[in-house]
Amino acid sequence: MRIVIDAMGGDNAPAANVEGALLAAKEWKDTEIVLVGDETAIAPYLGNERPGNLTVQHASEVITSDDEPVRAVRRKKDASMVVAGRMLREGSADAMISAGNTGALMTTGLLVVGRMHGIERPALAPMIPTIDDKGMLALDLGANMDAKPEHLAQYALMGSIYRQKVQGIERPRVGLLNVGTEPGKGNELTKVAYPLLEKLPIHFIGNVEARDILTGTCDVLVCDGFAGNILLKSVEGAAGAIFALLKEQFSSSLKTKLAAAMLMPELRSLKGKLDYKEHGGAPLLGLSRLVVKSHGSADANAIKNAVRQARIAIENQLVESISKEITGK
Amino acid sequence: MRIVIDAMGGDNAPAANVEGALLAAKEWKDTEIVLVGDETAIAPYLGNERPGNLTVQHASEVITSDDEPVRAVRRKKDASMVVAGRMLREGSADAMISAGNTGALMTTGLLVVGRMHGIERPALAPMIPTIDDKGMLALDLGANMDAKPEHLAQYALMGSIYRQKVQGIERPRVGLLNVGTEPGKGNELTKVAYPLLEKLPIHFIGNVEARDILTGTCDVLVCDGFAGNILLKSVEGAAGAIFALLKEQFSSSLKTKLAAAMLMPELRSLKGKLDYKEHGGAPLLGLSRLVVKSHGSADANAIKNAVRQARIAIENQLVESISKEITGK
Repeated sequence: MRIVIDAMGGDNAPAANVEGALLAAKEWKDTEIVLVGDETAIAPYLGNERPGNLTVQHASEVITSDDEPVRAVRRKKDASMVVAGRMLREGSADAMISAGNTGALMTTGLLVVGRMHGIERPALAPMIPTIDDKGMLALDLGANMDAKPEHLAQYALMGSIYRQKVQGIERPRVGLLNVGTEPGKGNELTKVAYPLLEKLPIHFIGNVEARDILTGTCDVLVCDGFAGNILLKSVEGAAGAIFALLKEQFSSSLKTKLAAAMLMPELRSLKGKLDYKEHGGAPLLGLSRLVVKSHGSADANAIKNAVRQARIAIENQLVESISKEITGK
Repeated sequence: MRIVIDAMGGDNAPAANVEGALLAAKEWKDTEIVLVGDETAIAPYLGNERPGNLTVQHASEVITSDDEPVRAVRRKKDASMVVAGRMLREGSADAMISAGNTGALMTTGLLVVGRMHGIERPALAPMIPTIDDKGMLALDLGANMDAKPEHLAQYALMGSIYRQKVQGIERPRVGLLNVGTEPGKGNELTKVAYPLLEKLPIHFIGNVEARDILTGTCDVLVCDGFAGNILLKSVEGAAGAIFALLKEQFSSSLKTKLAAAMLMPELRSLKGKLDYKEHGGAPLLGLSRLVVKSHGSADANAIKNAVRQARIAIENQLVESISKEITGK
């Protein structure tokens, strides 16, 4: 199998991306890793011991985080991200990984890689951390702000297959993000989506409330991009504010300072637990090939882990399985 | 002025409601307090020293938290909540307070009290706690799941006037809940609402993100009921999960247990800070008279505080001010 890594995307590019590619190439000899990006920028990080299964594909341009997604993908035809996407479309690679501009990666998915037949809206599906450490795959989170009920049904199906194929959960529990657990609850979108989800060949557990997300109430959380964004950022903001307050209160006197120092390791581990950056790359589901979005601040290990994810997905024929369920063929 | 209290609504009714009414009647001699509910249930809590400005209006029925709102309001014509609403409509009281079934109170507002001329959708506006202790008035939170852009504009106007008139903020900062701070961001609803909010006679500060809510980024937060619910419950859930985890981790060894014991007062004060139940009653804005929703678990003090809120609103002609802005008369 062949996995392409966008060498130029992300805050730590190209260093972290190249180091991650090296780690992956050394660990999985059966996997060809292709680094796409500026050869001269990549070379210093490659060193002398380049593994035989790692190659570099030159690309002269870079899409930055400030670029307007659609315009950048259309104009920068030799950008590392776009070149990687083209390799997927042409069938010369099975998956791509990028830590670059999320909007541009979505656009590359839509305009360069191409949608899967039968899918109207591909979805971005990051893992939301839960306190039981199992995490929850949430989709859509940011690819499309508005959704129709049929889109939510496709998200549910794709998310369920992903957790089965890539994470080995036999019967993933799928929940619909809503304002109450009773079936009749919600806005126009979720009210119409509910019966659609009931009819799917998935383990639909009904509506789930935002307050139960962190306790791991389901394995796949279905929502439109707007509601998903509000959820993720609320949790992020609440956790950040609480830790900041704790720090402030704990340093208010010598007594509490000493006590807090003793608890610091526990506090740090808790903070790490709730950091969604730690929870692997987010697949972009519903494209003709697998695209994985690594976090913008991904380090070498995060890139390597994204390769691991992609490998499992390819081995277990994730894209083919989704396509089969969607088209019925 | 005359303020009606639903004696039978809430988890601690009628005890807390009657005690709260007594506290309020004693503190504000110029205010007539009317307790509406079952006379025989109310009597034991009233005691012998009933203040001259406190009266009881008998109502034989009660709407419970399990009642289906619309049906209950239509059928239980002698329910305490409905009788109180009728007093507002007939002009025999200036405001009502209830800790009962939220949906039923909304329905009472719409069907019994009646909307303000020019308002399509009344909004429920609770205070979301912020770490600067100033709180943020958020609307709509639960009255209507879906909203049109024009509704959001009316929420913005009503919320701004409320914070001005009742909480004395001279120039309340009004923010639109969104997925990014740039003007073009969002779903179809917020994209269309943004320019409408810009045209209003308010201090519109633009889009605000869910992650900045707890730090008090604005005084009035405008959102549809669905997004607002997701926001509020995410914050609630995240805070709950983090405190539970802290407790668990802090009791993992004798050392951390001792340290945690020293920090307990700080932790408790932090928890109280983030408890939105502590932050007063939520006005239902856009009705022809003021309706205040007290939290279901309201105690006597919370009921008294709701009376304080209602008094200030009446003194400062909140309803008249909103009506003037909406109708331009």
